Amino acid sequence: MPRPRPLTRQSRVAVAAPASAALDPADAEAGLKALRARGLRVETVRPMSPEPFGYLAGNDDARTKELNTLLSRKDLDAIFCLRGGYGVLRLLGTLDYDAARQHPKLVIGYSDITALHLALYARTGLPGLSGPMVAPDWPTLDAASEDQFWALAGGATPVKIIGPKGEALHGMHDGAAEGVLLGGNLTMVAALLGTPYLPDLTGTILFLEDVGEKPYQIDRLLARLHLAGVLERLGGLVFGAFTHAEPSANRPSLSLKDVLAHYARCVPGPVASGLVYGHFPQKSTLPVGVRASLEVSEGNVSLVIVEPVTHSS
Amino acid sequence: MPRPRPLTRQSRVAVAAPASAALDPADAEAGLKALRARGLRVETVRPMSPEPFGYLAGNDDARTKELNTLLSRKDLDAIFCLRGGYGVLRLLGTLDYDAARQHPKLVIGYSDITALHLALYARTGLPGLSGPMVAPDWPTLDAASEDQFWALAGGATPVKIIGPKGEALHGMHDGAAEGVLLGGNLTMVAALLGTPYLPDLTGTILFLEDVGEKPYQIDRLLARLHLAGVLERLGGLVFGAFTHAEPSANRPSLSLKDVLAHYARCVPGPVASGLVYGHFPQKSTLPVGVRASLEVSEGNVSLVIVEPVTHSS
Repeated sequence: MPRPRPLTRQSRVAVAAPASAALDPADAEAGLKALRARGLRVETVRPMSPEPFGYLAGNDDARTKELNTLLSRKDLDAIFCLRGGYGVLRLLGTLDYDAARQHPKLVIGYSDITALHLALYARTGLPGLSGPMVAPDWPTLDAASEDQFWALAGGATPVKIIGPKGEALHGMHDGAAEGVLLGGNLTMVAALLGTPYLPDLTGTILFLEDVGEKPYQIDRLLARLHLAGVLERLGGLVFGAFTHAEPSANRPSLSLKDVLAHYARCVPGPVASGLVYGHFPQKSTLPVGVRASLEVSEGNVSLVIVEPVTHSS
Repeated sequence: MPRPRPLTRQSRVAVAAPASAALDPADAEAGLKALRARGLRVETVRPMSPEPFGYLAGNDDARTKELNTLLSRKDLDAIFCLRGGYGVLRLLGTLDYDAARQHPKLVIGYSDITALHLALYARTGLPGLSGPMVAPDWPTLDAASEDQFWALAGGATPVKIIGPKGEALHGMHDGAAEGVLLGGNLTMVAALLGTPYLPDLTGTILFLEDVGEKPYQIDRLLARLHLAGVLERLGGLVFGAFTHAEPSANRPSLSLKDVLAHYARCVPGPVASGLVYGHFPQKSTLPVGVRASLEVSEGNVSLVIVEPVTHSS
């Protein structure tokens, strides 16, 4: 399996925008500045505030070329994604997976970037980091979130996942499992169902978050994972945050808690919630594509990354 | 292949609520009254304004039992669905497909009901009608929309699809195809990707509509059909209406037209738009699961249903 080199604060890295552009060009500038302030030698291959192409940070050719150029570079240790939004799905058919395998490097981001992580892992076995993005996360990253990021990026193991303020996970179903940790944004995980870009999720520990989806929409997303038989084949499941998930006013709704509990019952192994991971700045970074263990017992939860995301330094 | 009996204004039919309840109980009453005013003998097996279970018209057991009871009845010619919303996905694993095959009857509805049509066709070959729902469509159905509904429901063939006001379709790609007509709500078609409930769409003529999805969300839905190889295998594609599809204010966006044109290029056969079909009262009924021909030539479009949705009367 391809393994990136460990990432340090002296690494040479690049920033890419495979999805949407920053909401404000100043956000992109602030993000680059924040990365450089850590000591990283940061490159870009095109302007970080490109001529917008609708909701895309440049047309498909420009975004594909940027990503393939960076995936092919031997001298880079990581690709930091500028922002999520939307756009990765349009590129999955034209990415240079051979280059990604031959020159393994960490791809860092979340939300729409989930599709990139999953496709890279499905096609090459390359792990990545579901963590802070250049705009808007890095300029305001808190010390605890950043420390955990650097520990994982540097190849530390084992790493016990707790929230930046020490928040513990909550048990939903008792059990114990060890398997490859995969996941990210629920919409994007579900988007890959029925395509060649979703890894086999049998026996994996899946983590999920989403933003701006109402309970009935989260229900629909999880129903799809159930109908595809995914939930039934998981080793374990961990729910992160579902933010801005309020139902429409004056419409009856199941609660988010009801919905998560309904589908948690489909999973044969341990299930937990309360992972501090989602669309907000202070949060855990999670590796994608390396082994982890999940134990839930009498409400106590332990989620531990047991395999480094990089080769040994 | 199972074929329903032709539906007439003297038929015995039932109303079911497999998804969400009516927004107002008065809407359900008005809908039942509208069906009875046509002469139909209309039954229900449970109150049409049940104790709501969140956004669902009763819990999964109640909705499954209702649908399976009606699918098993020999003396009914059709099941009119009360409303869409959300809920069919939660039932697909427990429906009595054998009963549907043994006692074929028309299932009528659209939106969330798309998942029911596609699952019934995938599992049994039973065709259905993507047409007006009890609440809110039937009480305000215009004469032209209703005439076309009765023609199809009665087994007329061939039926040329034109809008209720004579609206013509618009050509996007020239070509000619004949194949099984399938489709409905884009969100629900995409929701079945990777599950056992989506029919093989190879060579079919697919029609699609949606409501309340912004251009980037329609892009994401169509990208999923592309990544799954569905668009590339279609015989032809017809776009209905995408209503309430305006992008967020002050956010750059591709236009809906750009998005549809982008994915239309993936289809090897004819592509048309302008089908008067979607989330509004005055619209075409489309059969699901019977053969149709689509011809697009120099901007002229002909969509003709060439196989009756019922057995011969």
